[in-house]
Amino acid sequence: MSRSKTFFTAGPAELYPRFEEFLQDFVDQQLGSISHRSQQFKDIYQHTDEQLRELMNIPAENAIMFTGTASEIWERIVLNCTELETFHLVNGSFSKKFYQYADSLGRHAHKLEKPMGEGFSYAEIEVPEFAELICVTQNETSTGVQTREPDINKLKRGNSSKLVAVDMVSSAPIPEIDFSLVDTAFFSVQKSFGLPAGLGVWIANETCLAKSEELAAKGSIGAHHCLPDLWKQSRAYQTPATPNVMGIYLLGRVAEDMNKRGIDNLRKETDAKVNKLYKYFEKKEGFSLGVEKPEHRSRTVAVINTERPSAEIINALKVKNLIVGAGYGPKKESQIRIANFIANTPEQIDALIAAFDELF
Amino acid sequence: MSRSKTFFTAGPAELYPRFEEFLQDFVDQQLGSISHRSQQFKDIYQHTDEQLRELMNIPAENAIMFTGTASEIWERIVLNCTELETFHLVNGSFSKKFYQYADSLGRHAHKLEKPMGEGFSYAEIEVPEFAELICVTQNETSTGVQTREPDINKLKRGNSSKLVAVDMVSSAPIPEIDFSLVDTAFFSVQKSFGLPAGLGVWIANETCLAKSEELAAKGSIGAHHCLPDLWKQSRAYQTPATPNVMGIYLLGRVAEDMNKRGIDNLRKETDAKVNKLYKYFEKKEGFSLGVEKPEHRSRTVAVINTERPSAEIINALKVKNLIVGAGYGPKKESQIRIANFIANTPEQIDALIAAFDELF
Repeated sequence: MSRSKTFFTAGPAELYPRFEEFLQDFVDQQLGSISHRSQQFKDIYQHTDEQLRELMNIPAENAIMFTGTASEIWERIVLNCTELETFHLVNGSFSKKFYQYADSLGRHAHKLEKPMGEGFSYAEIEVPEFAELICVTQNETSTGVQTREPDINKLKRGNSSKLVAVDMVSSAPIPEIDFSLVDTAFFSVQKSFGLPAGLGVWIANETCLAKSEELAAKGSIGAHHCLPDLWKQSRAYQTPATPNVMGIYLLGRVAEDMNKRGIDNLRKETDAKVNKLYKYFEKKEGFSLGVEKPEHRSRTVAVINTERPSAEIINALKVKNLIVGAGYGPKKESQIRIANFIANTPEQIDALIAAFDELF
Repeated sequence: MSRSKTFFTAGPAELYPRFEEFLQDFVDQQLGSISHRSQQFKDIYQHTDEQLRELMNIPAENAIMFTGTASEIWERIVLNCTELETFHLVNGSFSKKFYQYADSLGRHAHKLEKPMGEGFSYAEIEVPEFAELICVTQNETSTGVQTREPDINKLKRGNSSKLVAVDMVSSAPIPEIDFSLVDTAFFSVQKSFGLPAGLGVWIANETCLAKSEELAAKGSIGAHHCLPDLWKQSRAYQTPATPNVMGIYLLGRVAEDMNKRGIDNLRKETDAKVNKLYKYFEKKEGFSLGVEKPEHRSRTVAVINTERPSAEIINALKVKNLIVGAGYGPKKESQIRIANFIANTPEQIDALIAAFDELF
């Protein structure tokens, strides 16, 4: 079945080109019925684990674990990796939610906040003395602002006794996260992996595990999907509760295909596409870029200011079966967001630009 | 694609007969890409909500909400509906896990425990004075023991000031839960709804909501999937985080199909099938029923004692593409478990019995 619409939405998003083929394999093998305690499931988990390690350069030391959503992981990180204080770099709605989760869980949650559209550079970040965890949103889906990998690395090096958590929900596997530095990171599959929503992926190192065990000895770290349980089960390619087997299987197949294409090639293609978009909207009358500083512009979610109401643009494109997202929250009417995920091919990006040329 | 294997496993389980057709509709409509904030998603949620209400006789007052798994709901119920004390009827591994979740969350968790294979009747249950919540596992997947609906109703009537939570993970929608009495109930979709795992369904009433709001005013009720957030969003057919859209869609289609077939017919068919199984294994040499008292025998998971090691039986059946589960935990080698879900047709049950006749 060919797809009539092309989605440039920031997640749920355009599905991976080979999604239907992988789904058919899942159905044909009756994998929706297999026990999550069977060797067959362990093999699926192991395959996904190995493909993700290769794709994202994740060391053997780290665990790769599965949850229902990435939001769930915000809570699990706060519960399992902090006792009293957290610190959050807030520059949009999702980094703010991570902060609010910590606050709701009774942590003394500190934040350094920037207006929407602005990003952070290492030099300007002062980390509170007693914060146990620094939370960075590598790619703010709401604003199209990124925190560059070198800044994240410096942040860890400058605060080596603190844990660093990286929200890479809408950018993984594009950014080159250095997992020898970063303690924990997470993403969901309905963004750049081009899969239906319903699966969160949590990567953590032994320092996080040690912290969770230390906290568990003192008090409660929650009951569901606690890090020590998830960790122990993951080492046998198992999960504490019945997981989204379909999501894990599809993720493994997509990651395998991405490895065949080569992550360096995918990164180059991503940059070429997004640079084309930014170059176009920089000059296009009635439009401008949502993020002023080039180094803070996202590689996977391009946010564009629009002079006319965003709904007008979105509706005109919809007639051509091109689905683009509105701005987030207060920017709903004055911005559009264009996903530049791996599933969005160069041809699709060209078709979108051609449509803008024709329509506006 | 026809299915080569038939699954009688207790979840993940045999998929619903029309599963592939519904999945194809999901793919053809590109629903894996739609925004979870769109009207299209709200319509999907509303459809599933309405079909479940009809199927399970859930009053308008109750909210129907979605999580990643049913285990997650154990934690959410304890966090949102209790401050200090819980009480659990424990007669198997899953009721014990619900108890352990409450304990891990720092509650004073009381339990009344029975050996595996035994069930509870109302008369013998003494509820601790200060317990705020009574947790009943309507169908213990690990032992094939049920708690009958009249006993659950009496339990609530006899303890009207306490909340009653019903785990119906591996029996919904078969038991006739009286939602004018029971405060909260939950299930997952990979059991009797015949869908791939990855979605939990949480039903709660306004008393639960009021309790969660009262607790939130005093302290933390967690951060992710808190009842007040889930509730408020569900009223607009929305979710706080990106949900498993595919799971919600497929559940709605399956529930709709079940409504067309009629829940009374499905209950009658379920009982006819399970009675056939029990009658057969009661007399079959080398086998006996895992649950002695007829009134405590599950309608959806038949547990059978085996004289020879369960693996021998399971492997012999596997050659015939009939997949049956082992006993759970300590009963792994001495029991088999046969799911009698709605997706397991009368013809499949007959074929299974015929295979037992031939092989053993």
